Amino acid sequence: MFNKVLVANRGEIAVRIIRSLKELGIKTVAIYSQEDRESLHVQLADEAVCVGPAKPQDSYLNMRNILSAAVGTGAQAIHPGFGFLSENSRFVEMCEDCGITFIGPRSETIDLMGNKAHARSQMRASGVPVIPGSNGFVADVTIAKQIAEKIGFPILLKAAAGGGGKGIRRVDQADQLEKAFGEAQREAQNAFGDGRMYVEKVMGNVKHIEVQILRDHQGNTIYFPERDCSLQRGKQKVIEESPCEMITDQQRKFLGEAAVKAANAIDYINTGTLEFLMDQQHQFYFMEMNTRIQVEHTVSEMVTGIDIVKQQVKIAAGESLKYQQKDVVCQGHAIECRINAEDPIHDFRPAVGTVNYLYFPVGNLGMRIDSALYAGSKISPFYDSMIAKVIALGENRTAAIQKLKRLLNEMIINGIQTNQDFHLALLNDQTFIDGNFTTDYLEKEFLPRWKREAD
Amino acid sequence: MFNKVLVANRGEIAVRIIRSLKELGIKTVAIYSQEDRESLHVQLADEAVCVGPAKPQDSYLNMRNILSAAVGTGAQAIHPGFGFLSENSRFVEMCEDCGITFIGPRSETIDLMGNKAHARSQMRASGVPVIPGSNGFVADVTIAKQIAEKIGFPILLKAAAGGGGKGIRRVDQADQLEKAFGEAQREAQNAFGDGRMYVEKVMGNVKHIEVQILRDHQGNTIYFPERDCSLQRGKQKVIEESPCEMITDQQRKFLGEAAVKAANAIDYINTGTLEFLMDQQHQFYFMEMNTRIQVEHTVSEMVTGIDIVKQQVKIAAGESLKYQQKDVVCQGHAIECRINAEDPIHDFRPAVGTVNYLYFPVGNLGMRIDSALYAGSKISPFYDSMIAKVIALGENRTAAIQKLKRLLNEMIINGIQTNQDFHLALLNDQTFIDGNFTTDYLEKEFLPRWKREAD
Repeated sequence: MFNKVLVANRGEIAVRIIRSLKELGIKTVAIYSQEDRESLHVQLADEAVCVGPAKPQDSYLNMRNILSAAVGTGAQAIHPGFGFLSENSRFVEMCEDCGITFIGPRSETIDLMGNKAHARSQMRASGVPVIPGSNGFVADVTIAKQIAEKIGFPILLKAAAGGGGKGIRRVDQADQLEKAFGEAQREAQNAFGDGRMYVEKVMGNVKHIEVQILRDHQGNTIYFPERDCSLQRGKQKVIEESPCEMITDQQRKFLGEAAVKAANAIDYINTGTLEFLMDQQHQFYFMEMNTRIQVEHTVSEMVTGIDIVKQQVKIAAGESLKYQQKDVVCQGHAIECRINAEDPIHDFRPAVGTVNYLYFPVGNLGMRIDSALYAGSKISPFYDSMIAKVIALGENRTAAIQKLKRLLNEMIINGIQTNQDFHLALLNDQTFIDGNFTTDYLEKEFLPRWKREAD
Repeated sequence: MFNKVLVANRGEIAVRIIRSLKELGIKTVAIYSQEDRESLHVQLADEAVCVGPAKPQDSYLNMRNILSAAVGTGAQAIHPGFGFLSENSRFVEMCEDCGITFIGPRSETIDLMGNKAHARSQMRASGVPVIPGSNGFVADVTIAKQIAEKIGFPILLKAAAGGGGKGIRRVDQADQLEKAFGEAQREAQNAFGDGRMYVEKVMGNVKHIEVQILRDHQGNTIYFPERDCSLQRGKQKVIEESPCEMITDQQRKFLGEAAVKAANAIDYINTGTLEFLMDQQHQFYFMEMNTRIQVEHTVSEMVTGIDIVKQQVKIAAGESLKYQQKDVVCQGHAIECRINAEDPIHDFRPAVGTVNYLYFPVGNLGMRIDSALYAGSKISPFYDSMIAKVIALGENRTAAIQKLKRLLNEMIINGIQTNQDFHLALLNDQTFIDGNFTTDYLEKEFLPRWKREAD
């Protein structure tokens, strides 16, 4: 097992990883930008190294400085968390060159799955159904038009190297295609240095369902009960839960086994998540794979009792998974609300400031709040606005909602605007309570209604 | 189910109960003393009624005022928590007279088990082994001496109506007996209005092992995995855990079934805990029964996932237990540290003051901190010094200790002295780590050594 691990991230995920490392008896190294000097992850780690100025490009994305910090502190491995360098295969290679273990998949796997068009082909070859669209890249707008006419409008033009909503355009009819293609291609070229595009059918009335797996170097694989992450705003997940009540045991097994099959086919190592869309007939279509820990891994941990980050570290150190599929038992229902520093009334514009009073309701069974906040901490404009994840575990979905409402009612974050009340409204919404929502629901139905009522 | 319940307590247990009631969708009524105006339980409850001045006798023990508050607010039931009126059969009767459900056992059961001499006889009759001693009361010092000589010194003289360490004397040899008997009898008469005494052998080299049960009006009974509460100071538990690693599955079953048998024999309703001593030969001896929720119920909740307070409420409302014994599965190991406002260096004298900075490490899996603290809250000299219960659940005992150490290292309570560092020292102690400690260990071995090192 490693003696010392560097956590190449900030905020709640850095804190969450440092905590698991400490419990494994591993020394921790934090990195931080000049802006983050006083951040909780810096305070909690055994050592901390400043890797640059506030801008992510100069610090948390500064591969050379981060690797220098790892080498300088004698860290044997790097946990990338999510975002930043977590899916950067070049960084993984640089780690290898320095003799440092990257806690995640191999660089080739990241490349394979990072290229969304490739990933689709790979999955189709593994027998996993994919969203109708192009088989790989589309060379130009003419081919895109042919495919679009075959599968039917509306379609999505998507950057193969995409992520974070960049290089994506929705096209509702043929005469919009050319303009959109050019725009998306240029945006992708700028954002990822790769302008290649692929085509996907726009699936209406679907749920976002995802399955996380863990796979070790010995080839042992387990999958977690599925997560329903259909409540989204601007392609960002807002509320996530596990399991999805609408999915039968048989479908759960089908999805899980498809995920395992796909992971085996590419000799996947560490943790990853296959994202699917589920239509009204409960047909699943593969969308993409995330080759890192995700924000919402917490709900899977809560329903299974398995610390996924600890498993990531153990797998990276070469240990065999000690869990078999039969040990992954879903007990109860878990739901997470992402608390963001933002102003929901004013189009969710990011909020900054200092937390001048904080109360987290930390008692009783089946709760957890992952956060880097403390009384006095500052929210910077340079980074992601997510400041806390409030997670409740109940014996069933109704109990989980009740608990989550209680937690949000008790929690006090003063000094910065947050979406806490917005979440409370959502938790009280009948469609949410019924569980009968699709990926369009939050933006197209709930939000307009909520805005009218808030005015 | 009840619409509204009054919680006749304060501090962390009142907060903990209010939270479970809220999750059940039940309206909550807090009571408070003038000293507790700003307490968290008052802030969290839907309604709050002041029941008197600071002194417990005038407020939290003021039966008339509490019942008036219940009647006045339309509460249909009262949850007593622990301490205060929780084992007061007169109060239970008064509740009944007012048509209010007492969430706990019947008054007769409280009387039966509250009389420790009776409880011993009852348990012996149920086939549960008891600590060697008198069979019921001892009428006078002569009879006490006869019994003492039969079972062998040292012995304990104990008040039948006892509790909280009052009316107890240890007697090491025959010529001390007469004086001790007189003293204990007078103390018991003053404290409980009942000077009746019984005799128990002093058991050396023993562990304190206890088994909690839940029993409904329909006669369904379940028991929880045992708790080891051997780490005590001044008869107060300091650290509690579940299960006890030294107990075999067979012994666990024996203890649990003995507890169920005893509960059935007296038609026990609601929750209660049978306390045993276990000697080096792993023989168990019944000590006494607590007819209420206990401080350490939390560790049982953590290893089983069952919210015991919710079950208490459901049972009191007449519902059948939905758990069978096979549903009570022990998953992992949980340990609790009782954080007290006290100064361990100066003989643990109680500390008072205002919390001017608070940080509770609320993230990651398997943790919970039950507390009524918030930044700005005041610790009053009028009440118990316990201010927080820090609980960790791990996949095994070692993992639970690691997590607990991490939690205590991260937790910050500024403004009042606490035993946080004392707990950290104890968690790092080799005898604690080995699990091989008896009820004498903390006071006789650990504490003197710790004091020497602290000097």
